[in-house]
Amino acid sequence: MTPDAIAALDRADPLASKRAAFDLPEGVIYLDGNSLGALPRHVPARVADVVSAQWGERLIRGWNDCGWIDLPARVGDRIARLIGAPQGAVIAADSTSLNVMKALCAALEMRPARHVILSDTGNFPTDLYVAQGVAARYGAMLRTVAPEAVDDAIGDDVAVLMLTEIDYRNGRKHDMAALTAKAHEHGALTLWDLAHSAGAFPVDVTGAGADFAVGCGYKYLNGGPGAPAFIYVAPAHQNAIAPAHAGWMGHAAPFAFEHDYRPADGILRMTVGTPSIIGLAALDAALDVWDGVDLRRVAEKSAALGDLFIAAVERSCPELRLASPRDARARGSQVSFHCADGYAVMQALIAHGVIGDFRAPDLMRFGFTPLYTRYAGVAEAADRLATVLRDGVWKLPQFQVKAKVT
Amino acid sequence: MTPDAIAALDRADPLASKRAAFDLPEGVIYLDGNSLGALPRHVPARVADVVSAQWGERLIRGWNDCGWIDLPARVGDRIARLIGAPQGAVIAADSTSLNVMKALCAALEMRPARHVILSDTGNFPTDLYVAQGVAARYGAMLRTVAPEAVDDAIGDDVAVLMLTEIDYRNGRKHDMAALTAKAHEHGALTLWDLAHSAGAFPVDVTGAGADFAVGCGYKYLNGGPGAPAFIYVAPAHQNAIAPAHAGWMGHAAPFAFEHDYRPADGILRMTVGTPSIIGLAALDAALDVWDGVDLRRVAEKSAALGDLFIAAVERSCPELRLASPRDARARGSQVSFHCADGYAVMQALIAHGVIGDFRAPDLMRFGFTPLYTRYAGVAEAADRLATVLRDGVWKLPQFQVKAKVT
Repeated sequence: MTPDAIAALDRADPLASKRAAFDLPEGVIYLDGNSLGALPRHVPARVADVVSAQWGERLIRGWNDCGWIDLPARVGDRIARLIGAPQGAVIAADSTSLNVMKALCAALEMRPARHVILSDTGNFPTDLYVAQGVAARYGAMLRTVAPEAVDDAIGDDVAVLMLTEIDYRNGRKHDMAALTAKAHEHGALTLWDLAHSAGAFPVDVTGAGADFAVGCGYKYLNGGPGAPAFIYVAPAHQNAIAPAHAGWMGHAAPFAFEHDYRPADGILRMTVGTPSIIGLAALDAALDVWDGVDLRRVAEKSAALGDLFIAAVERSCPELRLASPRDARARGSQVSFHCADGYAVMQALIAHGVIGDFRAPDLMRFGFTPLYTRYAGVAEAADRLATVLRDGVWKLPQFQVKAKVT
Repeated sequence: MTPDAIAALDRADPLASKRAAFDLPEGVIYLDGNSLGALPRHVPARVADVVSAQWGERLIRGWNDCGWIDLPARVGDRIARLIGAPQGAVIAADSTSLNVMKALCAALEMRPARHVILSDTGNFPTDLYVAQGVAARYGAMLRTVAPEAVDDAIGDDVAVLMLTEIDYRNGRKHDMAALTAKAHEHGALTLWDLAHSAGAFPVDVTGAGADFAVGCGYKYLNGGPGAPAFIYVAPAHQNAIAPAHAGWMGHAAPFAFEHDYRPADGILRMTVGTPSIIGLAALDAALDVWDGVDLRRVAEKSAALGDLFIAAVERSCPELRLASPRDARARGSQVSFHCADGYAVMQALIAHGVIGDFRAPDLMRFGFTPLYTRYAGVAEAADRLATVLRDGVWKLPQFQVKAKVT
C-alpha cells in the first residue's frame, strides 16, 4: 500500500479524532496498549482533583460528598456497556486474578457435584494459577487442553469452563457464544476473562449467556498501571452466591458494623475490602473516552490495522512467521510473529521508537488500540522492524539483557 | 489546663514541625486520621509524576524503568520499620480484608488438625466476615468471645488467634506479646490486624512473635482513600505457605508465563494480581513523612493528646460517658465517648469544624494523629463539642439525616 493510500485511510478513519484524547509521547509508535493503555489527556487533572481537592480538602467526608462509596458500582456500570452487560451486573474492584478467584469459588459451589475446571493452555497463566489454588482447596481439578480442543473437552463432569476470549500470545479468538452454549448443554457454567476483549471490540456477555466474566482496567480501558479490574455476574446468579470472599464492602449494611456477614443485594456482594479510590477515579476518568464510541467501528479499525501490519511485515520481513490468525474475525486486536531472537529484536525495535512486547518463548507481540493508533503508524512500525532486522542492530549487547518485566 | 499551658505543650512538642508536612484544610480540626489520614503535602506532586511522567511518557516501560514491579516489596520494607518487622517480611498489596483472608487460609493449612479461628467481638467486622467466609470453606468455625475473655478462651483446639490490636470502637489495646505467647503455648498461630496500630505507636511483631499481621495504608500511614494494605508473615513461615491466593505476581517467575504455579521465594508469594501502581506510589510518597520519626515520641504525644481530650470533655460535657480506657497505656491513639444522640451530635460538630466520626450504636470517636494534631486543636475540639451539646444545635433536622458512610 502506498503512503498516499495509507494517509487516505487515516483521513477516512471515523475514530481519528479520538487520538487527540490521549497524551502520547513524541516520536513513539505505541503498539502495546494491550499491555498498558495510554494516558487519556484529561486523567491527570481528574486524579489531581481527587488527591488534592477531594482527599485533601474533604478528607473522610469524601466518602459521601464525592461519591467514593459508589465508585465500584458506578465504574462497573460504565464498563457494562462495553461488554454487553445490563446495569447492576458489573463492579470494578480488586485485580483480575482475585476476580477470577471469586468467580471460580462461586461456580464450584453452584456445581457441588462436579469437580473439573476446564481451561486451555492459551489462557493467561495467572488465571491458571488461581484455578490451581482454588482447585486444590475444593477437591477439584484444573484440566487444560489445547485451545482448539476445548469444544470437544466439554463434558458432564465440568463444573466451570474458564477461558480467556483472546489468547494473550497470538490473539486467537474463542467463540464465546458457541462455547458457552455447549457448556450449558452439559450443565457447566462459564467464566470468561475479557482482559483483551473489553474495549477492543463489541462483547456481548448477555447475548452469549456467560455466567461470569472478569477483565482488566489497564489494557484497552486505559485506567493506568494496575488499575482496578472488573467482574460480571449474570443477574440470575447474583443473589444465589454466598461469597467466599466475604468482606465489609460487600455487606448488606457495611456501616452498621454487624457481627455477622449478610451479603449485599446483587453484584455488590462481589466487593470485599476498601477499594482504591485514586485508582478507581483514574479508571472512571479514562472511561470518558468511550463516550459516544461505537465499538463496531473500533472492531473494524482493529481488523484493518492488523491486516495492514501483517501485509507490511510479511512483505518486508520474510524471516518472521505469523503466529496470529490471518482472518481478522478469528483474532483480537493484536498480531504476533514468531522470531527466535524476538526478545532482542523487540528491545532494539523499542529503542527505535516502536513499542510492542515479547512473550516467551519466541513471540513478538503488537497490539492495535484503535482509539489512538494510526494506519501510518502501523506502516511505519513495519518499516522500522524491517530496518532493525536488516541492520542486525538487535545483536548489540544492550538488547540482549533481560529486563525484570518483559 | 490554661490556654497558656496548652500553648506551651505545642511549643515543646518534638513532633510539632511534622504538621507542616500535611496539607490540612483551613479552619478544620481533624480528629479522624484513624479513619482516613490527612494528605501529606508532597503527595500530589508525586502522584502527578507517576501519572503524567511515568505512565504517560514511559508507558509499559515504566514497569522496569520506574521500578513499578518492585513497589509492593519496597513499600512493604518501609512499613516494616514501623511494625518491628525485618526487611523482606512485609508487602503492600490488596486490601486489609483480602490480606486477612490470605493469612487465615495459610494458618488453617498450617494447623490442619484444628478447626477454630478464635477472635473477639471487638474485632473490626470485616475481619469477622472474612473469617466466616473462610471458616465455611475449611470446615472450621469462627469463635468470638468478649475482648476481656480472649486470654481464657485460648485452648488446644485453636488453629489461629485472630485479633485486632486496637479495638476500632473504643481504642482498647490488646497485649500482643502476652496473647501471642499464650496462643503459642497452646500450639495456635496468631494473626494481628494492625489497622489502628501501624503509625500510631511502636509495634513489635518480631518481639511479640506474631505469625501473621495485616494492616491498613490509609489510616495512620496516610496513603489516601483505599490505599493498598499490607501483610506481614514471620520469616520462618513464609516458604512453608502454599498460597490459596495463587496469582502471577506471587509466582517465582511471573514473566516466564509458565503453565504451573510455583510460588516466589519469601513474602512475595503473598501477592496475587497486578498491583495498583498509582495507589502504591501515593502510599510510598506518604511514608516519607515517617523518615526520622521516633515512634516512641508518637506514642507519648498520642497518650498526652488523649489524656488532654478526656480531661477537657469530662469537665465541659458531663453528659458524655468515656468509652475508652482511661489509662493511656491500655488504649490506642483514639478516644470514644458514649452518647445516645451521638450520630447527630457528631454531624453538628463536623459542621462546626471538628471532624470525628460515629460508630453504632452510640459512640462518638476521636482519633489523635500525633504528626499533625496540636494540643491546642484538641482543647478547642472539646470546647466546640461542649458548645454543640449546650446549644442543642445537633437537634436541627439536617444533622439527623443518616449518610451512606458514617
